[in-house]
Amino acid sequence: MKRPTISDIAEAAGVSIGAVSFALNDRPGVSAQTRERIRAIADEMGWQPSAAARNLSAARAEAIGLVIARDAATLGVEPFYMKFIAGLETELSATGTALVLQVVGDHDRAVEALRSLWAARRIDATILTDLWAGDPRVAALERMGLPGILVGHPSARPAGSTVPAIWSDDAAALNEAVNYLAGIGHRRIARVGGLVTLEHTRIRTAAFKAAAQRHGLASAEVVDTDYTWEAGAWATERLLTAADPPTAITFDNDIMATAGLHVARKLGLDVPGELSIVAGDDSQLCEMTYPSLSALARDVLAYGANTARLLLSFLDGAEPSDFQDATPRLLLRDSIAPPTR
Amino acid sequence: MKRPTISDIAEAAGVSIGAVSFALNDRPGVSAQTRERIRAIADEMGWQPSAAARNLSAARAEAIGLVIARDAATLGVEPFYMKFIAGLETELSATGTALVLQVVGDHDRAVEALRSLWAARRIDATILTDLWAGDPRVAALERMGLPGILVGHPSARPAGSTVPAIWSDDAAALNEAVNYLAGIGHRRIARVGGLVTLEHTRIRTAAFKAAAQRHGLASAEVVDTDYTWEAGAWATERLLTAADPPTAITFDNDIMATAGLHVARKLGLDVPGELSIVAGDDSQLCEMTYPSLSALARDVLAYGANTARLLLSFLDGAEPSDFQDATPRLLLRDSIAPPTR
Repeated sequence: MKRPTISDIAEAAGVSIGAVSFALNDRPGVSAQTRERIRAIADEMGWQPSAAARNLSAARAEAIGLVIARDAATLGVEPFYMKFIAGLETELSATGTALVLQVVGDHDRAVEALRSLWAARRIDATILTDLWAGDPRVAALERMGLPGILVGHPSARPAGSTVPAIWSDDAAALNEAVNYLAGIGHRRIARVGGLVTLEHTRIRTAAFKAAAQRHGLASAEVVDTDYTWEAGAWATERLLTAADPPTAITFDNDIMATAGLHVARKLGLDVPGELSIVAGDDSQLCEMTYPSLSALARDVLAYGANTARLLLSFLDGAEPSDFQDATPRLLLRDSIAPPTR
Repeated sequence: MKRPTISDIAEAAGVSIGAVSFALNDRPGVSAQTRERIRAIADEMGWQPSAAARNLSAARAEAIGLVIARDAATLGVEPFYMKFIAGLETELSATGTALVLQVVGDHDRAVEALRSLWAARRIDATILTDLWAGDPRVAALERMGLPGILVGHPSARPAGSTVPAIWSDDAAALNEAVNYLAGIGHRRIARVGGLVTLEHTRIRTAAFKAAAQRHGLASAEVVDTDYTWEAGAWATERLLTAADPPTAITFDNDIMATAGLHVARKLGLDVPGELSIVAGDDSQLCEMTYPSLSALARDVLAYGANTARLLLSFLDGAEPSDFQDATPRLLLRDSIAPPTR
């Protein structure tokens, strides 16, 4: 009888090839129960790891891969990403682990880059950010048997996938913002959202619309953008020059909120007298504007540090599981007031 | 006769072991002339590379190492570093090259990390930033035979070293700022500088003092800091609450300049009426404050891109040489006015 391959075992066990790879290489990504079941089936089928594969998997790269599918230049203006990377580094540096950072054009190239880093054992695991709904990279990780953690809501995970996720409750945060604005009398609130392809954009927009409906708002328009200053300015101008413009706008990041403030000033609107603004990420930008911007604030440095700590613990044998990070809270500064129109 | 080692060749040629390694491995770091001379001596002594070493050196890691000796958390709040890394990525991503980022506590650990990445051929070259005067990391690179580029003034390079540098004329930039402030009547100008251990801090402080002397200023105090918001606030408060406070302050980055603006406001001083402010780096922070901050502006994204492009060209066989990047220019916004005191 020919030696069984991991595909044979996967078929026999009714699990993915990735799950078999995780189980047989003693890597995180499957529950203890599934691991035992897969191993029992593999033993029964006479599976033996090759010596070469064993040696390969024993050598740790002491490096984590972060492959980002974005325009490289946007990284430098997006405070979220750099704080997140700095947060990763606070944990990685403590353990002498390197971060292998690669910026690519799209998800296919991201998968390619991860495959080649993993094949050469230049990384031990990866962190996936900017998750799409049903993100194709997640299935690719499992096929490769590359351990990883998803930064984003578990709902982005394809059915049957077991890659753990670290996430925060974006829906609750959006809900808090709308509750507060409606509570002080706003009836026309708009949202300037991020990339529609991203799972968390979808979650935030759904939460925004649900809250608006609950409060019976007169209008709750959503404009989708790409997170840039230019798009934030364009969206704000479009909203404020329409008939019945909103009296409050929530933006999906800090950059777009400052752009919105800029446009409001240009149009001669007083902030917060004639327009209230909520920034979707907090950063020093929000403190430094005049008026300073109220924001959905979270500790992004801690988010990055928690992500690295969890991933390292999985590599050290901890049972992989999802982790809910702190929920962003509405931090009131000077850009919110009751409506005057 | 025993086979000669690269130390034997270095001794015979009167050069460093690093220079021999560069020359024999056809890597950048020595001039064409020196390479030829070393090879001639090596041939004469009967030197032969081992097949193993040849194979090793032929395999490219397609990765560049950036090991930063800093507190990881400061990376996330320093717009310069984020933009510089984003700039590196614009070039690296175009060639499928990864950036291996590691944050460590000090220069000894940085050398250790680079040695281990290089020994495992996980990087092809490195970028050294935050150069100290006579930086010990530069000599270490040459001893290891690890190609690299210095981001900073060539004067930080130890005597005899041939590692190329990319730099910009910080002295000219500081000089322009003092010239302008003195030109509109300021006689008491202070400088809030960065880390004194850094070569570019030394260069900027020397340029500031020389310009102050040339203009016969009544006072030109320098306060050294660590680039943080807290240090910028502390330094500003110290300067503004002393007898005969300055009427203008130049800060060594944007974060400290915004902290300075904050402190001035707290002390009830009008900016720019009673205090003029110049930020030492430009970023969106400077545009967003009220008043917006005049800054010594440079295209940091391009600086990062140029650094990566140069280093990749050296790896592809281009002759290593120093490169002077664009000089930062004084960008006038709303934080400078003639003195009223």
